[in-house]
Amino acid sequence: MQRSPHTAPQSGNTDVTVGVDIGGTNSVVGVVDDAGTLRVRKQFPTHARESVESFVPRLAHVISGTCEELSPHTHIRGIGIASPAASTREGIVDNPANFQWGRVDLAGLVGRYFDVPIVILNDGDAAVLGEARYGAARGMSNVLLMTLGTGLGAGILVDGRLVQGAHGAAGELGHMIVTPGGRECACGRRGCAETYVSASGVRRTAFELLAESVAPSRLRNASFEGLTTDHIAGLAAEGDELAAEAFRRTGHALGLLLANVVTGFDPEAIVLCGGLIHAGELLAAPARASFDQHVLERYRGKVRMLLSTLTDGEAAILGASALVRDSLSSVEAI
Amino acid sequence: MQRSPHTAPQSGNTDVTVGVDIGGTNSVVGVVDDAGTLRVRKQFPTHARESVESFVPRLAHVISGTCEELSPHTHIRGIGIASPAASTREGIVDNPANFQWGRVDLAGLVGRYFDVPIVILNDGDAAVLGEARYGAARGMSNVLLMTLGTGLGAGILVDGRLVQGAHGAAGELGHMIVTPGGRECACGRRGCAETYVSASGVRRTAFELLAESVAPSRLRNASFEGLTTDHIAGLAAEGDELAAEAFRRTGHALGLLLANVVTGFDPEAIVLCGGLIHAGELLAAPARASFDQHVLERYRGKVRMLLSTLTDGEAAILGASALVRDSLSSVEAI
Repeated sequence: MQRSPHTAPQSGNTDVTVGVDIGGTNSVVGVVDDAGTLRVRKQFPTHARESVESFVPRLAHVISGTCEELSPHTHIRGIGIASPAASTREGIVDNPANFQWGRVDLAGLVGRYFDVPIVILNDGDAAVLGEARYGAARGMSNVLLMTLGTGLGAGILVDGRLVQGAHGAAGELGHMIVTPGGRECACGRRGCAETYVSASGVRRTAFELLAESVAPSRLRNASFEGLTTDHIAGLAAEGDELAAEAFRRTGHALGLLLANVVTGFDPEAIVLCGGLIHAGELLAAPARASFDQHVLERYRGKVRMLLSTLTDGEAAILGASALVRDSLSSVEAI
Repeated sequence: MQRSPHTAPQSGNTDVTVGVDIGGTNSVVGVVDDAGTLRVRKQFPTHARESVESFVPRLAHVISGTCEELSPHTHIRGIGIASPAASTREGIVDNPANFQWGRVDLAGLVGRYFDVPIVILNDGDAAVLGEARYGAARGMSNVLLMTLGTGLGAGILVDGRLVQGAHGAAGELGHMIVTPGGRECACGRRGCAETYVSASGVRRTAFELLAESVAPSRLRNASFEGLTTDHIAGLAAEGDELAAEAFRRTGHALGLLLANVVTGFDPEAIVLCGGLIHAGELLAAPARASFDQHVLERYRGKVRMLLSTLTDGEAAILGASALVRDSLSSVEAI
């Protein structure tokens, strides 16, 4: 069994924790010092069709390499891994939607290479921890994070603790049915929030508008597969009214959704992150207006809507490394 | 200042905690022993228009009387008070909808009569604690309770802890907007869940059906004000198709709502309580069918839908007394 040289503490070593964010297209490894500063990060492709048995050695190699890049005397204290479909309690990853992994003991597999505590957690959970420790929600204990990417993910912090649910499946807010009988969702049902409020939701709304209206738009020359939200946002910024309307409708649906989810958790803030927030005020302005219009009076002016201040993936890396650091200090305290 | 004789521990005394459930029409005082058994309960009218300054002496009188009924040597260890619009953290009740109380330090006012620890909590929070300790969800740590009464209330337990929110306003799930632009709600907005899924929701749905259809129904002889859900349920049981349809539609809306709220919390069970559950399978059967139809696959067969097994108000009394007992043992443990 291959063991990393970074497992035994030596004097003069740099103590670090490692945060990993496993994404559908790329994964990122970050090396974080005990002050919570991300010192080095390295991105590598995830290869959706690869088996987990061949992914893990690649991941281990990148972890070792990234640590050596920081210093040849790095001492890894623990590794936190953010993954889709992860359960912290069971330590397993269960059929992540974009991979052919099945149900796998990811912590155990990575543990063959590094003899240190390994914590795995959901990507949404990692991101909300990262934002609450180092990002837009710094210092807050009650935070709701929504990730607007290909789908709509969430992470929830109540009184400083992650809400993971009885079966590790809390925070699937993207699968709230907002329009019964509405758009088909990848989950097999209809009308889920993420079919409207996500990057693919914006694209679907743009095509709905192309069908509904006769307004001229440069979107009429794009294919569905060829269209990205950056493209739609770019056209909207240049004055394409139909492209702007796609973001207005998405923002309106987002604001209503947020007004609904705050009734469950009453957070201090909602943090929005994910690729779609690059659209900035195109999305945020109508979302804020719709939130203000729909929110119950007792939350008005109390629950803030914030945009992530961390770069993509940084929140999850910092959150994952923070959780493993927390677990180390609770062990050391005993 | 009047002090209760029950404040100093004496040998041979019966140690009890007191649970109080303040309702819109009636309030209930229960005396609970250390094993969690409700030994005596007494109900008295709340008088919606009464000031809190005249309500509290009446409450104190009932508490003393109920304890003396159990034994002349009762020793009250603490009092837990479940009230609408209560904040446990601040110890205050803030403008409960059915009273003219304003913002009031209820724990402080009751503390003038009893020199013991006093905890106040939301009625939904008290009920979910009661159900998780002694009722339908006994032994569970992740529980969502929905109270189907005049309105639609909720109480949420995550990993054994109450979810109260950053501003003490979590669990307002009855004010999720399920039909934008839909029925007017007492909160001033439109389309809130409680305008459909509640006792008044059933009544509104019955009248909607009377307007929609030409089917004969004995409901056609009832006035809106004169109609109760027990009346509608009675007619449905006797074969009145329109009355039955009112419950089917309400159950369908309830099942969809529950499928949506489980995505946030992933509980072990949802417990339904409140006056409307007296309708039994008239409501529960379509609710269960709709929940199964709408729930996300990963919760299917895992999240159970249960009906409260405690009598009305008992859950809140037991929950309130349990919370004050918990606070006593955490103090004693220090």
